[in-house]
Amino acid sequence: MGHWAERNIIEAIAGRQRRTPSDLIQGIGDDCAVVRKAGGLVDLWTTDALVEGVHFDPAWHPPYLLGRKAANVNISDIGAMGGRPRFALLALGLSGTTSDDFAGKLMDGFLAALVEHDMVLIGGDTVYSGERLMLSVTVCGEMAENEVCYRSGAQVGDLIWVSGFLGNAACGLELYRCGKDKEDRYSSLYCAHLDPQPQVRLGRLLAARGGVHAMMDISDGLATDLAHICKASGVGAVIVADDVPLADEFLHAAAMLRIPPVQLALQGGEDYQLVFTAPESSSQSIRIIAREAGASAICLGRIVAGQSVLLYQNGKSQDITFQGYEHRF
Amino acid sequence: MGHWAERNIIEAIAGRQRRTPSDLIQGIGDDCAVVRKAGGLVDLWTTDALVEGVHFDPAWHPPYLLGRKAANVNISDIGAMGGRPRFALLALGLSGTTSDDFAGKLMDGFLAALVEHDMVLIGGDTVYSGERLMLSVTVCGEMAENEVCYRSGAQVGDLIWVSGFLGNAACGLELYRCGKDKEDRYSSLYCAHLDPQPQVRLGRLLAARGGVHAMMDISDGLATDLAHICKASGVGAVIVADDVPLADEFLHAAAMLRIPPVQLALQGGEDYQLVFTAPESSSQSIRIIAREAGASAICLGRIVAGQSVLLYQNGKSQDITFQGYEHRF
Repeated sequence: MGHWAERNIIEAIAGRQRRTPSDLIQGIGDDCAVVRKAGGLVDLWTTDALVEGVHFDPAWHPPYLLGRKAANVNISDIGAMGGRPRFALLALGLSGTTSDDFAGKLMDGFLAALVEHDMVLIGGDTVYSGERLMLSVTVCGEMAENEVCYRSGAQVGDLIWVSGFLGNAACGLELYRCGKDKEDRYSSLYCAHLDPQPQVRLGRLLAARGGVHAMMDISDGLATDLAHICKASGVGAVIVADDVPLADEFLHAAAMLRIPPVQLALQGGEDYQLVFTAPESSSQSIRIIAREAGASAICLGRIVAGQSVLLYQNGKSQDITFQGYEHRF
Repeated sequence: MGHWAERNIIEAIAGRQRRTPSDLIQGIGDDCAVVRKAGGLVDLWTTDALVEGVHFDPAWHPPYLLGRKAANVNISDIGAMGGRPRFALLALGLSGTTSDDFAGKLMDGFLAALVEHDMVLIGGDTVYSGERLMLSVTVCGEMAENEVCYRSGAQVGDLIWVSGFLGNAACGLELYRCGKDKEDRYSSLYCAHLDPQPQVRLGRLLAARGGVHAMMDISDGLATDLAHICKASGVGAVIVADDVPLADEFLHAAAMLRIPPVQLALQGGEDYQLVFTAPESSSQSIRIIAREAGASAICLGRIVAGQSVLLYQNGKSQDITFQGYEHRF
């Protein structure tokens, strides 16, 4: 089955559901589901699976970092709504070749990511999964209902921000695939692929007092993830190529790999940076919050009328709507 | 890795967690995690994964029933605490040979099970999973905090009850494995394997007013699951072989397969009946509740001092503690 067929099968089924309980504020279609509870609070829920040979290669992914990543890509979804992650459940599929040592380090890394975010593992299932190691994670978070940042809130005139360099993870993966995985100068790129850092603190502060209209995390490339925001909000977007934040080592590696850097940065997945939109009047508070969170906030475009994501580069404009891709091995 | 190594890896990690938030009443170690919320209510959480060739064979498992089963084995865990299932999240791994038709029917069955229990699918992730189809499901339920039935409440002197015939699912699977899957007389056995029915209504009524001390669902065979109750409660148990409820078609098939029926009934997994313990004074209310729920309640033993599960058969007693097994293909 093709990529989009896969992606849409659950959404298609979810769309056939007629029942919407009054406490279900947001079902499938955002980074997390949102369920109202007492005291002005909501629960956030998200699930993501990682499969050997599809999302990671154990030949180069150290098990400790793989465990961290399985937790952190889910934690990132909580942060992308502005929430505080609290609990995790893990379905762990061990392949016939998974050693006790590998499994132990994997769980050490998974638990370390939870501890770092003051979370608790509350459920699990361990199964034999045949040829491929598999981690399926569900995470629950919590936040104030009136602070939740959805994808659907972007407004014409909003500035578009990201929380850091784009493309590093995709570039790091590409270096591994080409066997160029031993150069110190690219260590930040390898790291971006092996051990992504969810922007939970920044997400929480932005949701609480950043004046942000829409927010999500960048898992499938900005070209696709911003298109999700545009589609949910009924707006378009323009990205200015010269404003896309690119790291020096990324530019060096992209040149060596002969890949156009802006294309790799916007189409490459797994950055787990935040993308968010806000009115110009919020710009100063966004910069203050980013500093407070030890993060970055880079403005690289604007929400416009329409329904496409356009890239403005060298005096020309190009439609890049949903042009991101997930990296498959 | 061996079966118990697999099973214990998550529990071992969970045991290393030092933090227990005040609202986490029960972490890993029961059918569900239990998290306190407002109004005297708790949330229940559980996760279970099914892997092709390990937990099911698509050659004989119709996709619609497989989808139902993936939902229902999780729903059963909610029922086993006495809860009401509410929400589900699904990580679906599609293999290279999963057809659109198979995937569509699988999702139809999954959704049908949710609708039957008035539940909503609120999250999902669809991935390519290589050689094997895989379904990883997380379910959330809800109930009153003071009605939750844990594994740890069994008391010496309690009677031990089950909610229906044992061994039918294991026998049905055995018939498929032997190619004896076309005989009408065994249809209830095939069904028990393909389309198990979670005892949610019975579980809820028993928890609310059955005077039950401990309860869980039978997924790994009574010999193992009752041993979990005994271990958690610090007690032992005696099962009377003559009182184990066995269906006529089960006895017929077991004789044909030359498998001792009581052994198959107590060791075979996936019945998804409830096992519960209660003082003798509750016996009448339990029988009334079972009738009200359209279910059965069969008393087959007693909780005693000790730490073993003993089977009393033909004047002899035999230790069957943790002697159940999961069926692997």
